[in-house]
Amino acid sequence: MLGEITKEYTGGIYMRLQASKPIKLRNKVLGGQKPLICVPLASVDEASLINEIDEVIRMKPDVIEWRADYFERILDFSKVKHILEIIRTKTQDIPIVFTCRSHEEGGYKKIDDDRRLKLFQNVMESIYVDVVDIELAFGKEKIEQIKSLAAKNGVKVILSYHNFTKTPSEEFMIEKIKEQLNNGADIPKIAVMPQEQGDVLRLLNATYRARKEIQNPLIAISMGSLGIITRMTGFIFGSDMTFAAGVNASAPGQMPIEEMRRYIEIIL
Amino acid sequence: MLGEITKEYTGGIYMRLQASKPIKLRNKVLGGQKPLICVPLASVDEASLINEIDEVIRMKPDVIEWRADYFERILDFSKVKHILEIIRTKTQDIPIVFTCRSHEEGGYKKIDDDRRLKLFQNVMESIYVDVVDIELAFGKEKIEQIKSLAAKNGVKVILSYHNFTKTPSEEFMIEKIKEQLNNGADIPKIAVMPQEQGDVLRLLNATYRARKEIQNPLIAISMGSLGIITRMTGFIFGSDMTFAAGVNASAPGQMPIEEMRRYIEIIL
Repeated sequence: MLGEITKEYTGGIYMRLQASKPIKLRNKVLGGQKPLICVPLASVDEASLINEIDEVIRMKPDVIEWRADYFERILDFSKVKHILEIIRTKTQDIPIVFTCRSHEEGGYKKIDDDRRLKLFQNVMESIYVDVVDIELAFGKEKIEQIKSLAAKNGVKVILSYHNFTKTPSEEFMIEKIKEQLNNGADIPKIAVMPQEQGDVLRLLNATYRARKEIQNPLIAISMGSLGIITRMTGFIFGSDMTFAAGVNASAPGQMPIEEMRRYIEIIL
Repeated sequence: MLGEITKEYTGGIYMRLQASKPIKLRNKVLGGQKPLICVPLASVDEASLINEIDEVIRMKPDVIEWRADYFERILDFSKVKHILEIIRTKTQDIPIVFTCRSHEEGGYKKIDDDRRLKLFQNVMESIYVDVVDIELAFGKEKIEQIKSLAAKNGVKVILSYHNFTKTPSEEFMIEKIKEQLNNGADIPKIAVMPQEQGDVLRLLNATYRARKEIQNPLIAISMGSLGIITRMTGFIFGSDMTFAAGVNASAPGQMPIEEMRRYIEIIL
């Protein structure tokens, strides 16, 4: 009897809800059979950042996100490009997400919107990044400018919504995802904070319902300690990428990548 | 930053939804801060069973369930008592659940109801078991007889509902739990089979809603490969005991106890 159960338990008979239109990011598939594990880089200075890159690469993440809002020289565009070139060279074929989170949605540094737009434009014109992540709240006009430059340079766009205070209603979250798609997101993303266990379930319910309605890859996270299990099970219900801590964590609730990988292997 | 996140991640700040009226089972608390891990004994013959007991004890489960319906001499009451005495002696202070599952709800052997009732009566008069598990479908009258004998002997009663085909509606499951309580269950239990990911969420939603409405400890499981994550996360939403495989598994989807323990430690 054990043999039988063990086979079922480890055999990957189970299939998660995949995206019907997965996106190829270099040699990885976002929205395919397995969720991708993304590890952030979040160092403040160049020396730490370069050290962090080396350490993170050894952890073999599927995707690396540079949370550039942590970087002290973020407004020095040529420095940023220089860093990106280093990241690209070191990571070889690992897809890179460039994120400069707004302060309002959890970013480390406050940067005005026009400079942030210029930063994104500079970054996309470099040939180093595969994905950029910007907030839906950045506004239709700026998003359109980013979208057109992204299309020209083969860069995919995450439009994101973060709420570090609470978890909105299921309807609100599903509408937010659709609004992101309507604004040209290749990958919609929501990350919300639970205040109690029911909020965690609500995020999972919204993930499941959105997955049934949309075709694109999706990222949906309930943050903090309470939300940890959505990082570990959201991929079953239609979330296609999960964030784990490498050297640094970039949001509350991220668990170490080795634990996350082990856990996904148990389930899928 | 890592330090901070790690602290949050491992520090047990997170609290699961506990039962407001937990039940003490020897030196364990069902419905308390941590979920209990129950491992089944499911051997067919006496020699294997005794071997199984020894191996399972080494795994240090919180609770041991004897799935007596697997035992070839289940209708030999004095043999059953003899086995229970061995289990009791060997397990020392580990709470023991006695289960003789009906064939209709997943039991191994078909036994007629009157003999099954006699079996339970014999078992409860022995001083060896802490909990008995019987199906709600066993019927009001027989349940009452078992309840009164259980009360006399300090034995707690699980009233259970199993569906190996599908997952009923959220309302149905919540009503089933209440019906179990109304029929005198100390611990209501539902175990249902998912056919798709939404069924898994429905079981978790029902667990959460039931927990908000009832005070007793509760056991709620979505079975099979798809349902595995409910065994690993259901305790967050109000399920108080999870079943893991020791030497044998007694239902589809049970994972090895070491994995389960490791996993609970990650989350709580």
